[in-house]
Amino acid sequence: MIKTENKLSVFALGGINEIGKNMYVLQYEDDIVVIDCGAKFPDESLLGIDLIIQDISYLQENKDKIRALVITHGHEDHIGGIPYVLKQLNMPIYATRLTLGLIGLKLKEHGLFRQTELVLIDSDSDLEFGTVKVTFFKTNHSIPDCLGVVFHTPEGAVVHTGDFKFDLTPVNNDYPDIHKMAKIGSDGVLLLLSESTNAERPGFNPSEILVGGHIEEAFRKARRKVFISTFASNVHRVQQVVDAAQKTNRKLALLGRSMVNVVAVASELGYLTIPEGMLIDKNEVRGMDPEKVVILCTGSQGEPMAALSRLSSSNFREVEVHPDDTVIFASSPIPGNEKSVSRIIDNLYLLGAKVIYGSGTVTGMHVSGHACQEELKLMLTLMKPKYFIPIHGEFRMLYQHRLLAESVGVERENIFVINNGDVVDINNRVARQTRKVQSGNIFVDGLGIGDVGNIVLRDRKLLSEEGMLVIVLTLSKTDGQLISDPDTISRGFVYRNDSQALLNEVNQLVITTINNSRGESGNQRINLRQHIKKSVETLLYTRTKRRPMILPVIIEI
Amino acid sequence: MIKTENKLSVFALGGINEIGKNMYVLQYEDDIVVIDCGAKFPDESLLGIDLIIQDISYLQENKDKIRALVITHGHEDHIGGIPYVLKQLNMPIYATRLTLGLIGLKLKEHGLFRQTELVLIDSDSDLEFGTVKVTFFKTNHSIPDCLGVVFHTPEGAVVHTGDFKFDLTPVNNDYPDIHKMAKIGSDGVLLLLSESTNAERPGFNPSEILVGGHIEEAFRKARRKVFISTFASNVHRVQQVVDAAQKTNRKLALLGRSMVNVVAVASELGYLTIPEGMLIDKNEVRGMDPEKVVILCTGSQGEPMAALSRLSSSNFREVEVHPDDTVIFASSPIPGNEKSVSRIIDNLYLLGAKVIYGSGTVTGMHVSGHACQEELKLMLTLMKPKYFIPIHGEFRMLYQHRLLAESVGVERENIFVINNGDVVDINNRVARQTRKVQSGNIFVDGLGIGDVGNIVLRDRKLLSEEGMLVIVLTLSKTDGQLISDPDTISRGFVYRNDSQALLNEVNQLVITTINNSRGESGNQRINLRQHIKKSVETLLYTRTKRRPMILPVIIEI
Repeated sequence: MIKTENKLSVFALGGINEIGKNMYVLQYEDDIVVIDCGAKFPDESLLGIDLIIQDISYLQENKDKIRALVITHGHEDHIGGIPYVLKQLNMPIYATRLTLGLIGLKLKEHGLFRQTELVLIDSDSDLEFGTVKVTFFKTNHSIPDCLGVVFHTPEGAVVHTGDFKFDLTPVNNDYPDIHKMAKIGSDGVLLLLSESTNAERPGFNPSEILVGGHIEEAFRKARRKVFISTFASNVHRVQQVVDAAQKTNRKLALLGRSMVNVVAVASELGYLTIPEGMLIDKNEVRGMDPEKVVILCTGSQGEPMAALSRLSSSNFREVEVHPDDTVIFASSPIPGNEKSVSRIIDNLYLLGAKVIYGSGTVTGMHVSGHACQEELKLMLTLMKPKYFIPIHGEFRMLYQHRLLAESVGVERENIFVINNGDVVDINNRVARQTRKVQSGNIFVDGLGIGDVGNIVLRDRKLLSEEGMLVIVLTLSKTDGQLISDPDTISRGFVYRNDSQALLNEVNQLVITTINNSRGESGNQRINLRQHIKKSVETLLYTRTKRRPMILPVIIEI
Repeated sequence: MIKTENKLSVFALGGINEIGKNMYVLQYEDDIVVIDCGAKFPDESLLGIDLIIQDISYLQENKDKIRALVITHGHEDHIGGIPYVLKQLNMPIYATRLTLGLIGLKLKEHGLFRQTELVLIDSDSDLEFGTVKVTFFKTNHSIPDCLGVVFHTPEGAVVHTGDFKFDLTPVNNDYPDIHKMAKIGSDGVLLLLSESTNAERPGFNPSEILVGGHIEEAFRKARRKVFISTFASNVHRVQQVVDAAQKTNRKLALLGRSMVNVVAVASELGYLTIPEGMLIDKNEVRGMDPEKVVILCTGSQGEPMAALSRLSSSNFREVEVHPDDTVIFASSPIPGNEKSVSRIIDNLYLLGAKVIYGSGTVTGMHVSGHACQEELKLMLTLMKPKYFIPIHGEFRMLYQHRLLAESVGVERENIFVINNGDVVDINNRVARQTRKVQSGNIFVDGLGIGDVGNIVLRDRKLLSEEGMLVIVLTLSKTDGQLISDPDTISRGFVYRNDSQALLNEVNQLVITTINNSRGESGNQRINLRQHIKKSVETLLYTRTKRRPMILPVIIEI
């Protein structure tokens, strides 16, 4: 519980020391505003887990104080946790139009749309919760309609940047509001929370507008069909694909569920302008002159079930990649995805396609949506905060961001490089990081939220590496004698037909073990399962240098 | 079988469309020379597999014709398969001194050293096998003592480059023999096989010697201990670490089994010169002035059990990373390793270390060992081959290498972009690619070679994602009645204590299923296992949206 002497408290329940599951809590006395509710994709060590969300125990304990869940923008690491968190704790959601549209898609999928309070805001909105006021400022990023958040309290203003970059020649005039940021800085910022994704990268991002030129050039050069893959939510990139298609007289087909959904929402809400008659159905592609088609598809990160992966393995019923078609990756592979992306490129080459791939800085087909070092310094300079917390990044990014903040004049002792759950308390304009609230990873697996824990994961790991042997025996209750021969069933250890000799040896060993323990008292017989496990383990390790999970099933009758 | 009309045949049993498990076969009539015998590390989809080697059925069927296994150099992807292949098929091994030293370490570990014929060669060696002559040329790469191979036949010469780059100012005067390569080219090359690892990369590699300068500078700047991590087999890099330590008055400790082993072999054989008294034991580090120590360690690729990973998680008994120590990654992360490397960097920063990391071109702490585009063109220009097969690379690398070969004048129809097992046959100096020999991936798991196949892997995958439910029931043989209540055991599905209600529901469903099938004839009772599986599967999917493996164990008494 927050003690009464803490007037203003700031902490993260997710998003620090990680990329993903962003959630930040700003609290002034009895008023809490939560910022973002993202999901995180599990790495390969979390076997079978679908998604990771935040531990929201703190919010559940303080639910009466929560005034709003404010969402800065519509990316998965900022909205992906919403349906799972709402099932545990209802909160009114405040977001801009496109962001609300994308959240709506999710809520409908989970049957939560009707019961959720959705409040439309824009960068001019002005909210009041008790003594606290919340205002916003426009930023730009790789999705339209992004917000930074200002939390005005009697102690001072806390600014949360959301994800941002400074694109000064943006697509669709989607300018960052630098003048408003300057005004916020002039009025005084007590504490800044700023994102750190690209804090390791020197320089200033090129403008998204340059990507459009490269796309158009590639469309012009292509003699046959063009496939281009990017994140569906990168609406400005999609707009540039549309524009390039129009300029080069090509029709546009969409492949992939999220591409179709996001384009529909973005067009309906006016974020995307597609000329009448340009969109064609995927079924029409085959009938068209290949010089007259562009196929915009999902899967730029090598996701195995997405359109591009299926196209590369000729596994798409309606559309095929033919020799001399062009395939463009309008993306850079996210660390961890390089191998799956490479596999797709190899397959596309095998189909005879011309492939344009590699880092965006080389191909010109991608720019990052996150501020690089000079942009981060610009934000720090505009805001002139007294205190600074680098957020939204792994530790080395937070570390580099701290150095950047020092370089533009924030005092080292006023910078808090913290972890999820670490609370920064501010009283009389003095900040201290002393206490912790509960935070952590909650696993989503199928319909279950939090029901898969460490024991289950440890078992899955063991099973995944060496499989399992189930040893079934029936013993007499009266004298402990075997009633029938033991039966050993392998799953994921060895294939029975190839390894019958080894399995017979296991059965023989089990018989010996039982015979040796006969005559022991009932109490000792309880240890029979352990004896069998140990002796079979030793045998298998000697013969195979493997350690499968061993499950003796003993039936006494 | 090779038909008699095929005089000269060339193919790969591994190394094409992949990085790893290199093995190339050169055959002239009844004389076979095998080049390299590498292993490949499995990707994360091959659960529990330790290593992948080649399918050597062709060699086993033609074992009387095999004259030599020639090893071009001592990297794992060229020697790692030797112990496993030798267990199936004995062959005399020809290699240079350092390469033989490294192979010896492996053979001793597998108890194969005494029974293997090891033949020492150098770049001047001249071997004769029937009508075939084999000669060599010196190349350079990220390990000393590398060879290219020339297979001289009445049809003409076949050249295999091994792995190479052109470092014209190499460490330890380890020059590539460009004059000999030019002579081979002038004498006429019928077919060139050249490696393709960096065929996507423009330019010419910087010299390894430049790395030495950067290492020395970093040692000089460091105020406390320096940790530096690189591949142990990069003996020239190790030499430069030794030299930099000497120039900056630091002692050197080695951490990691492969670092200790390789340094011992390389020093003993004269490839590495370490000044008397420079090496200290890891136990001495703690007692030393931190300004006077360098620790050279394994783990630059983020391998979880290697020294650097253990240091980063303070899990090394003898040595610790302290605040303001310097840690240098003298490496670039191999695709797929980025995440594990990042995790280590984060942990090192948390320990307060200064970390020098990132791509070698940025930090200056690493150069690649593989020829970039201009170097590949230089090799093609020196050799002037009539025919060309790009090897040692994934498909997009082979494809780019083909374009490079065309750009320096090799005719497009004379370039074979082939797969493992595809044979190029040459008769009367005319090459054709028509037939295939058996090739494939053989999995090594523990002591087993090839005993883990697709069924076992499919089970491991299923188990890893959703775990397993074992349902045990005892039925009466006479009337099919349940003798005791069913027992459901979960491993990797749910944790019993948290999910007793669900498991009870499963048990109830099993009882109902059995009751419904009672009175059915014995034949139908055989389907009881299937009935139980199906109905439990449906129940679990409805309740949890998961599909664990279900194993009903039915005991009839």
